[in-house]
Amino acid sequence: MSFLWNAWYCAGLSHDLGQEPLAVKILEQPLVLYRTDDGTPSCLHDRCAHRFAPLSMGKVCGDNIQCPYHGLQFGSDGICKRNPWGNHHIPINAKVRRFPVIERDMLLWVWMGDPERACAEDVLDLAAHFNLPHHPVVYGSYSLPVYYELVTDNLLDLSHGIYLHAGSLTNGEESSGELQVDVQVEGNVVAALHRRLNEAPSPHFKKSWTRSERIDHHSDMYWHAPCNLVHDVGVTAPGRPAEEGIYLHVVHLLTPVSMSETKYHWIASRNFDIEDESVSKALQGAINHAFTQEDEPMIAAVQERMGTTDLMSLRPVLLVGDAAGMRARRLLDRLRREETVPPAVADSHVQGYSIDHIQQTM
Amino acid sequence: MSFLWNAWYCAGLSHDLGQEPLAVKILEQPLVLYRTDDGTPSCLHDRCAHRFAPLSMGKVCGDNIQCPYHGLQFGSDGICKRNPWGNHHIPINAKVRRFPVIERDMLLWVWMGDPERACAEDVLDLAAHFNLPHHPVVYGSYSLPVYYELVTDNLLDLSHGIYLHAGSLTNGEESSGELQVDVQVEGNVVAALHRRLNEAPSPHFKKSWTRSERIDHHSDMYWHAPCNLVHDVGVTAPGRPAEEGIYLHVVHLLTPVSMSETKYHWIASRNFDIEDESVSKALQGAINHAFTQEDEPMIAAVQERMGTTDLMSLRPVLLVGDAAGMRARRLLDRLRREETVPPAVADSHVQGYSIDHIQQTM
Amino acid sequence: MSFLWNAWYCAGLSHDLGQEPLAVKILEQPLVLYRTDDGTPSCLHDRCAHRFAPLSMGKVCGDNIQCPYHGLQFGSDGICKRNPWGNHHIPINAKVRRFPVIERDMLLWVWMGDPERACAEDVLDLAAHFNLPHHPVVYGSYSLPVYYELVTDNLLDLSHGIYLHAGSLTNGEESSGELQVDVQVEGNVVAALHRRLNEAPSPHFKKSWTRSERIDHHSDMYWHAPCNLVHDVGVTAPGRPAEEGIYLHVVHLLTPVSMSETKYHWIASRNFDIEDESVSKALQGAINHAFTQEDEPMIAAVQERMGTTDLMSLRPVLLVGDAAGMRARRLLDRLRREETVPPAVADSHVQGYSIDHIQQTM
Ligand code: FES
Ligand code: FES
Ligand code: FES
Repeated sequence: MSFLWNAWYCAGLSHDLGQEPLAVKILEQPLVLYRTDDGTPSCLHDRCAHRFAPLSMGKVCGDNIQCPYHGLQFGSDGICKRNPWGNHHIPINAKVRRFPVIERDMLLWVWMGDPERACAEDVLDLAAHFNLPHHPVVYGSYSLPVYYELVTDNLLDLSHGIYLHAGSLTNGEESSGELQVDVQVEGNVVAALHRRLNEAPSPHFKKSWTRSERIDHHSDMYWHAPCNLVHDVGVTAPGRPAEEGIYLHVVHLLTPVSMSETKYHWIASRNFDIEDESVSKALQGAINHAFTQEDEPMIAAVQERMGTTDLMSLRPVLLVGDAAGMRARRLLDRLRREETVPPAVADSHVQGYSIDHIQQTM
Repeated sequence: MSFLWNAWYCAGLSHDLGQEPLAVKILEQPLVLYRTDDGTPSCLHDRCAHRFAPLSMGKVCGDNIQCPYHGLQFGSDGICKRNPWGNHHIPINAKVRRFPVIERDMLLWVWMGDPERACAEDVLDLAAHFNLPHHPVVYGSYSLPVYYELVTDNLLDLSHGIYLHAGSLTNGEESSGELQVDVQVEGNVVAALHRRLNEAPSPHFKKSWTRSERIDHHSDMYWHAPCNLVHDVGVTAPGRPAEEGIYLHVVHLLTPVSMSETKYHWIASRNFDIEDESVSKALQGAINHAFTQEDEPMIAAVQERMGTTDLMSLRPVLLVGDAAGMRARRLLDRLRREETVPPAVADSHVQGYSIDHIQQTM
Repeated sequence: MSFLWNAWYCAGLSHDLGQEPLAVKILEQPLVLYRTDDGTPSCLHDRCAHRFAPLSMGKVCGDNIQCPYHGLQFGSDGICKRNPWGNHHIPINAKVRRFPVIERDMLLWVWMGDPERACAEDVLDLAAHFNLPHHPVVYGSYSLPVYYELVTDNLLDLSHGIYLHAGSLTNGEESSGELQVDVQVEGNVVAALHRRLNEAPSPHFKKSWTRSERIDHHSDMYWHAPCNLVHDVGVTAPGRPAEEGIYLHVVHLLTPVSMSETKYHWIASRNFDIEDESVSKALQGAINHAFTQEDEPMIAAVQERMGTTDLMSLRPVLLVGDAAGMRARRLLDRLRREETVPPAVADSHVQGYSIDHIQQTM
């Protein structure tokens, strides 16, 4: 179990970050996000260089963030801009690590690796999902007590739907059509394209779909390494293209907090009942229910059974539904092997001074 | 601190296991018990061979139990009987460990060691205790945050009664007769036979005993390795045999959950006031009170003081009341030394296949 | 991170110890304090020599304390005085470690190191603080989830006041005068003398000070190794001596419970509004608020950010306000290096007997 450092991770939705500093933890690093005077988001290590107070407990002063303990101020570049004490001289090592941050499509993204390698073009492009006119949006966030790859496994193998979500998201084993899965790998993306043909519409589409009794159902999941997923799910009349039907665009953004905790943000837009607020509410409620009452307890129970042991060393039986998940794991393993831990993580403190030196200079 | 594997452990009372699967943990192994169509109890490792979901969260389907995550079904022998996916082929390694289970005298017993060595005759025989006509039965269960040998120590040294249970189970130090203890070892049984002669009856016998003012009190504890105890306790007129008096038959069944947790089931039958429901209630209440308010806090405090250090390495002062407990510890030490960890525990996964093999066959 | 063993630590206020035994934990050692017949406090290891029950759950019997589990009694010297069992012989190793204890100036002090080296004269002398006529006293106690040196750092660097206590104990950054700090080291005492000249009185002095609009403010902190602090804080008319003004004498007594927990007792006396109970209440409330709502969350957050890493190995930036804290750390480091762990701690059990020996003698 490990992390990929050179990657963009979702730190929250844009509206999570207002005037107040926001504390998040990603890859075990405590981070603070804040907006400078012109609203640009900044991200710093959430640990003052002086006595290690959380900057997130402090306050924003123009373009700087002020430490709540003794008042040092740090800029967006992580360098101390104000020392209120003594001769106001700013010590050379008075700086904290900065993390590149990008705000796009309702989302905040933080680069956890070597800042030199951060490239805005690598941020997941969701314009096609959320910048569509007349596509109302609902969303939610959870904290899960699990390692992030177990959530990826859950999302890439939707065969669990007819068991775990029987009666909520699906009609259960009895009334469902046969599941066809097509798995494709392209670059750092693994796609799992699920089809069920000529079946009754599932509970959350039934009310909105009146054009035919039977439907074709598609659920296409695109995993982007390391752990963000784009999901197209919908129904259409049997034999007709998906575009003619009703559908949801969903993104599932997984952010590893630690080896045993994952933050999960999701956003869903739709092309049906777009004026109907009650459909938005029902959809959000259904997703919340399925996730918090069905998926989360199951993934947490699996985590508890697996402990800190790596999946493959437990020698799981593999079923046909595991194809996409196994390819994503193999791809992520390769990416992690290929990267060296970025110097900025290893070297987060200024080197080469000793207690004696400190005490002489005081 | 360690466990004896080749032994029967109490997994609960018969009525704990109905139509629904029952999750228990014994010797750190998560187990699921369920009843097949004809009511026979089965016991499997509570961890699906596919992605390690707890089978206990699933449902019973005839003689099988169905995994709640992706629907594999396993039989009483632990072998997968149904794969709902793909060509329905059942992978060779789709099996979970099974544990021999026996239901007898109101109780469920699970064999944690090598299944080949499980022998029904080794199950503690309680017919003489609970199959008696007109002996009403009360019972209870607790989860204790302690290593199981500390509970054994408590039960084998009843000298603690006049201090810890003063005013509840005993009359305390002042009004009690002298305690005589006789310790006997036979096979895997250690007996601690406690007598107090010619004293006032203790609180919970006082109301039911009207035949004499003074009584002889006996409390005979038989420890059966590794951690189940049979207990005869009663009063009779001074100098008369115990059979003429009133008495309780109690069993104390300790089941190690982990190195720091013990499940404790007890059952008590009696030969007095047998029609009187209020006596049953009072008895159950008195035992519950003594155990949860007096014994458990003390044993938990002892555990906290000892930490994970073995008793003998702390060099305890030994008193006369320790004789039975020390013999039980010595006997159990020998049994644990003599057994090798059973192959079924060490080898709970199918050996000899690699990631590459998996990925080729998918 | 480590402890100084040869030192007196505050175990509580005198009135905390009545007729009942009192359990405290100091330097990870569980201790029991009790008063003998004539009221003298005793302190023993809170772990019976028999089966390690906490003596603090037992009761005081004259000059002894009786174990709650099987009734052994121990005297103030830690030696067993009564064995109620068998032939009443007292085993040679039936003893627990005793800790020297001194009661003085409302406080209980325990010596954690080699008893031979305990010297009453080394106890912090607070007579000048609390034996003054007409100086009403208020006090409080907290348990902090932090390593004790972080609390020392907090108290020795009062520059945090204008940020962390803005609006409660201070007027904040804007309306405060310039802070002058003078640091002095003498023997095992480090003094941090803080002055702010010609400023508005801070909130908790404002109501009681009517003699001038502007004041000089002093706050003199005297750290006595290892972790007790005497604090003089007050206001006076500009340019006038402190004695003419109003002031508080405060002691801050830090007692390390473990590497990650500290007990904090404080006592404050004052020379103003001495008849006015409402001033006592307000003062106690203000100190409680500042400590529990402002200091404690900050120190706990710092601890969380630092984990178990030593401060200096994290290479903190040092500011002018760190001068006293760094000198205290250096002094304490030297004291800890100079002491060997006292034999009484290393050798807390009787040596040289084996299981075989025990079992032969039983
Ligand atoms: S801890 Fe940030 S200024 Fe002191
Ligand atoms: S985890 Fe049991 S079938 Fe998938
Ligand atoms: S534990 Fe103290 S007398 Fe037994």
